[in-house]
Amino acid sequence: MSAFNKMLVAIDLTEEAPQVLNKAKAMSEAHNAELLLVHVVEPVGYAYGGDIPMDLTELQDQLDKAAHEQLESYGNQYGVPKDQQMVTVGRPESEIHRIAKEQGVDLIVVGSHGRKGFQLLLGSTANGVLHGTECDVLAVRIN
Amino acid sequence: MSAFNKMLVAIDLTEEAPQVLNKAKAMSEAHNAELLLVHVVEPVGYAYGGDIPMDLTELQDQLDKAAHEQLESYGNQYGVPKDQQMVTVGRPESEIHRIAKEQGVDLIVVGSHGRKGFQLLLGSTANGVLHGTECDVLAVRIN
Repeated sequence: MSAFNKMLVAIDLTEEAPQVLNKAKAMSEAHNAELLLVHVVEPVGYAYGGDIPMDLTELQDQLDKAAHEQLESYGNQYGVPKDQQMVTVGRPESEIHRIAKEQGVDLIVVGSHGRKGFQLLLGSTANGVLHGTECDVLAVRIN
Repeated sequence: MSAFNKMLVAIDLTEEAPQVLNKAKAMSEAHNAELLLVHVVEPVGYAYGGDIPMDLTELQDQLDKAAHEQLESYGNQYGVPKDQQMVTVGRPESEIHRIAKEQGVDLIVVGSHGRKGFQLLLGSTANGVLHGTECDVLAVRIN
């Protein structure tokens, strides 16, 4: 039996992404597993909204567009077909868990640090977010 | 290239161990990697020592002996040779990190909960123990 059949690699769009992608790609090949490439765009309002009334739609659209382009570029580079690339908007930890569940993923691959990496996915140890995951998690150390 | 060459699976001796071992074994086969089987015995003094002067040597020896026997049994069952089985005494998170470093391990496999599992290895998020690891970590979900 193969340990994993369907993997989700969640990346930010920093210089750390290729290290996580390299590991995820090698894993998917070793296990002959499907690989989903996911990036979660955080709503602009989380950072800037609230106090000052502003129309952030255009900024959000620009961020989404940039994310799609970058993810497509990685997809081409790492041989992940377009229908296995996903950009969503929301809170990274909950979006990653949601997609993993919906898609029947059995391994989530994330960087072991970075704002959207493992720390965030885990949340605080007290919250026990990891207890909530329905699959295994590989934390890739960033050099 | 293979993603991993030398793996360390850290188990407690509860009923969760086989789930972690099954995954670690499948991983080591998929990656053609060496597998080290590690159990850390916590010093009895951590739990009972201090206030009341007692000689805990015999109790400690019994725990060590039981751990060796159980680990050897798992070793036989999962095809891990004796020289790749290790029982040490100390704090699980620091012992696991120490052995991983000394042995040049590139993946640590642990259960995602359980007292000696991932939570402990990670410690508090604030302490950032995971930042201190020199290799990747696979947290195996316990069903």
